[in-house]
Amino acid sequence: MNGAESLVHTLLKSGIDTCFANPGTSEMHFVSALDRIPGMRCVLALAEGVVTGAADGYARMAGKPAATLLHCGPGLANGLSNLHNARRANSSIVNIVGDQATHHRPLDAPLTADTEGWARPVSAWTRTATEAATIGRDAAAAVQAARTAPGQIATLIAPSDTCWNAGGVVAEPLAPPPATRADEGAIAAIARVLRAGEPAVLFVGNAALRADPLAAAGRIAQKTGARVMAPTSNRRIERGAGRFPVTRLPYAVEPAVAALKGVKHVILVGAKAPVAFFAYPDKPARMYPDDCDIHVLAREDQDALDALTRLADALDARADAPFIERVAVEPARGAVTSEAVAQTVAALLPEHAVVVDEGVSFGRAFYPGTANAAPHDWLQITGGAIGNGLPLATGAAIGAPGRRIVSLQADGSAMYTVQALWTQAREQLDVTTVILANRKYAILLGELQGVGAAAGKTALDMLDLTRPNLEWVKIANGMGVEAAQADTIEKFADLFATANRRKGPFLIELVI
Amino acid sequence: MNGAESLVHTLLKSGIDTCFANPGTSEMHFVSALDRIPGMRCVLALAEGVVTGAADGYARMAGKPAATLLHCGPGLANGLSNLHNARRANSSIVNIVGDQATHHRPLDAPLTADTEGWARPVSAWTRTATEAATIGRDAAAAVQAARTAPGQIATLIAPSDTCWNAGGVVAEPLAPPPATRADEGAIAAIARVLRAGEPAVLFVGNAALRADPLAAAGRIAQKTGARVMAPTSNRRIERGAGRFPVTRLPYAVEPAVAALKGVKHVILVGAKAPVAFFAYPDKPARMYPDDCDIHVLAREDQDALDALTRLADALDARADAPFIERVAVEPARGAVTSEAVAQTVAALLPEHAVVVDEGVSFGRAFYPGTANAAPHDWLQITGGAIGNGLPLATGAAIGAPGRRIVSLQADGSAMYTVQALWTQAREQLDVTTVILANRKYAILLGELQGVGAAAGKTALDMLDLTRPNLEWVKIANGMGVEAAQADTIEKFADLFATANRRKGPFLIELVI
Repeated sequence: MNGAESLVHTLLKSGIDTCFANPGTSEMHFVSALDRIPGMRCVLALAEGVVTGAADGYARMAGKPAATLLHCGPGLANGLSNLHNARRANSSIVNIVGDQATHHRPLDAPLTADTEGWARPVSAWTRTATEAATIGRDAAAAVQAARTAPGQIATLIAPSDTCWNAGGVVAEPLAPPPATRADEGAIAAIARVLRAGEPAVLFVGNAALRADPLAAAGRIAQKTGARVMAPTSNRRIERGAGRFPVTRLPYAVEPAVAALKGVKHVILVGAKAPVAFFAYPDKPARMYPDDCDIHVLAREDQDALDALTRLADALDARADAPFIERVAVEPARGAVTSEAVAQTVAALLPEHAVVVDEGVSFGRAFYPGTANAAPHDWLQITGGAIGNGLPLATGAAIGAPGRRIVSLQADGSAMYTVQALWTQAREQLDVTTVILANRKYAILLGELQGVGAAAGKTALDMLDLTRPNLEWVKIANGMGVEAAQADTIEKFADLFATANRRKGPFLIELVI
Repeated sequence: MNGAESLVHTLLKSGIDTCFANPGTSEMHFVSALDRIPGMRCVLALAEGVVTGAADGYARMAGKPAATLLHCGPGLANGLSNLHNARRANSSIVNIVGDQATHHRPLDAPLTADTEGWARPVSAWTRTATEAATIGRDAAAAVQAARTAPGQIATLIAPSDTCWNAGGVVAEPLAPPPATRADEGAIAAIARVLRAGEPAVLFVGNAALRADPLAAAGRIAQKTGARVMAPTSNRRIERGAGRFPVTRLPYAVEPAVAALKGVKHVILVGAKAPVAFFAYPDKPARMYPDDCDIHVLAREDQDALDALTRLADALDARADAPFIERVAVEPARGAVTSEAVAQTVAALLPEHAVVVDEGVSFGRAFYPGTANAAPHDWLQITGGAIGNGLPLATGAAIGAPGRRIVSLQADGSAMYTVQALWTQAREQLDVTTVILANRKYAILLGELQGVGAAAGKTALDMLDLTRPNLEWVKIANGMGVEAAQADTIEKFADLFATANRRKGPFLIELVI
């Protein structure tokens, strides 16, 4: 058995059965091993940002890591920005990065790069394999690291000779350490704070945004009057009919500060204390009042459901807060506004759809406007590195088979990883992509004002995507995805309803 | 004057008048400053790999650095693979990477990343600005570093407050240190070796591949019988009619070893001793014989023309070797082979065209097959990180106005940075792109055999781009570039001739 075979066997034995791949020469033994070892679904992408973003989407929905297969330092580098997003989402990912053979690296051949140096800032665990006999053990350790709470990125660099040499040994799976539980003293102290009745916010993120912990948070809110709020950007929120509703902190500084005005206690549950996405001249950096106390109920790596349940019990909070009721609405008519798109999506969203929201500027009404829709999951770009949405949708479709993916995508952001459409076509994934074609980097127009910078012709030209217009129907067709353009909200509703009923991907260019 | 204005003024004063940009919030003050300070041509790209690859192409043709403008760590990360290629090409580039404000960085907002850590492996010079008063000086130092021989990458990270704060000071340009000259003793020793008449190769790279140093190498070859050879991948070769011809070392190990068989002396002129691009089981890593001596006439950072001229003088080599004569050929007819495409390109190549060659597997006949064409420059991907060609062509067009760019591009590689087409349309660049559509990662089929890996259905599926086919005419049209498909060599000739005569970009999908 060669090293590559021991690597693939160990990944499978450790529960990894999906590999998003953009391989090169140094990964050919791994690719070849897949022929002899059944069980690994290998998904090809044409750019590495698609590979890593898809692995993120897969992890968020499947609740376990996929592997990625990347080619040397530059292949990894192309995937780093979506690994940055994945790190901010606490997604479990096992990167397998092929590299120069151990004896070849000192010769500094053209493709030699600082693979480890690039990997470390996004990886909780980084290791370069040294020989075929131990790469199996390395792989088991990588999966263990990836599965360690709250979900981490592990990068195993595999020099080609560690894959082609004989002597590979399949390693047994290594169990990740159990998630730690919230401290009893912290729970008691926070219960005291909440009983005292000062204005408080339960600030819930990450695993606390699934239906059960949200319901527990709801019981606490019902009993104490505390509000429940989520960060601006989140990995996965279970919401819609039958769930406890959670509002998100606004992106812009002023409304975020307003939302937390007067709050005396922010209680963190799997979330960090909220800070501004960017600094702006003469604006605050922290979104909570200066005299507000920050309490940690559960860190991101602790069991949020357990912590919220125990806090609810400590408060004798047994009564569920009202859950969201389904409010049937009609698709919107009239102008193509953010609210109208939200209403149409809410009207036509399939049960248990997965919404991937990279709507950026135009998308600000989407989340509130879909609160009473059928039950669904809401996935966002978590690290601010745009170009996350199309890959996320691609991976989510593979991680959540049988559920429709609705990908609400700003046009400027979509272009960074547009190659994802080809993978959606190749794998015939059930993804409805809505390109919000405003033909500008609209968010930057706001940011230009936000930083107080004056805007003249040259500046505005840098934010303008009309010279030439991107023609999304052609681009999608060119990558094998059927597509159509909607220039009215009524046409959008027709296309959206039809797209969601079909098998395989469809793209709607919505001119806004 | 704010920091951003002092930064832009200093760049201009230091001779930088072109900026390839994909900006975000943290760069808005820089963008805004461009409105008030005339003289900087700002070129927008929709993905950062296009930005950095274009800056590489620009530097190779203009002989001076452009600036890039990138957004935070993830924006830089998206551009790293083409910076890797640029580093291998010794291209001069000044990266300006906006980042979190100095006081905001400790708060670890979502987009915060290890920007310096990612920059260092590709940058000879990396610095994070600390205040508005000194960012001008930082910029002057960055340009100096970028212009230091043989051409380097300098990365200046600009926290947003160093740009928006008042107190910016324009800095005077800093002269780079003069290129060092070859050692007199080395020249004398190499002259003795060459006079002795043992089989020798002048291995010339980088700046030694321009017309004048090649002519000097030709005089030495003419006098001594030494052969002149270039590495496999090179930043820029001046060739065609009127130049001294230089062959390249083959990519594959066996023919490369055969090409250097029996050679007793390899004399390096701006090149490194040749090693295999990748290691393969049981194949040699060094391409030259074990008993061969390696001599360094000039390092990459030394003046190659000076060194070759002095060596030629020491050898009393005054007679020019025969230069290439233009051999007019007809466009090919018949099957679409690599040789036929090369012949057609040779027949129709405009005078002083710039050929960007990322033909990969199918392109192997292109270089030899165009040896007798009109004078032209030949640019290659130097670091092996595919997805270099379309951006390189984009930047070359801006760095060499008035010259036709011919971009010979493998389809799989083209997809990594396909967004370059939009910039070509926006700037109406004179680029003829030829997509060599073999609809597979053909080079990897060879590499799969090369590493001795067996290939079955799963493996072959990972190298296959037919499910679905990429439709390049639609993709190009979708990004505003006119395009047509050629499925015969005759149709290709017609389209190629027409495309080269027009203004602006055109794409030909050549089905091979």
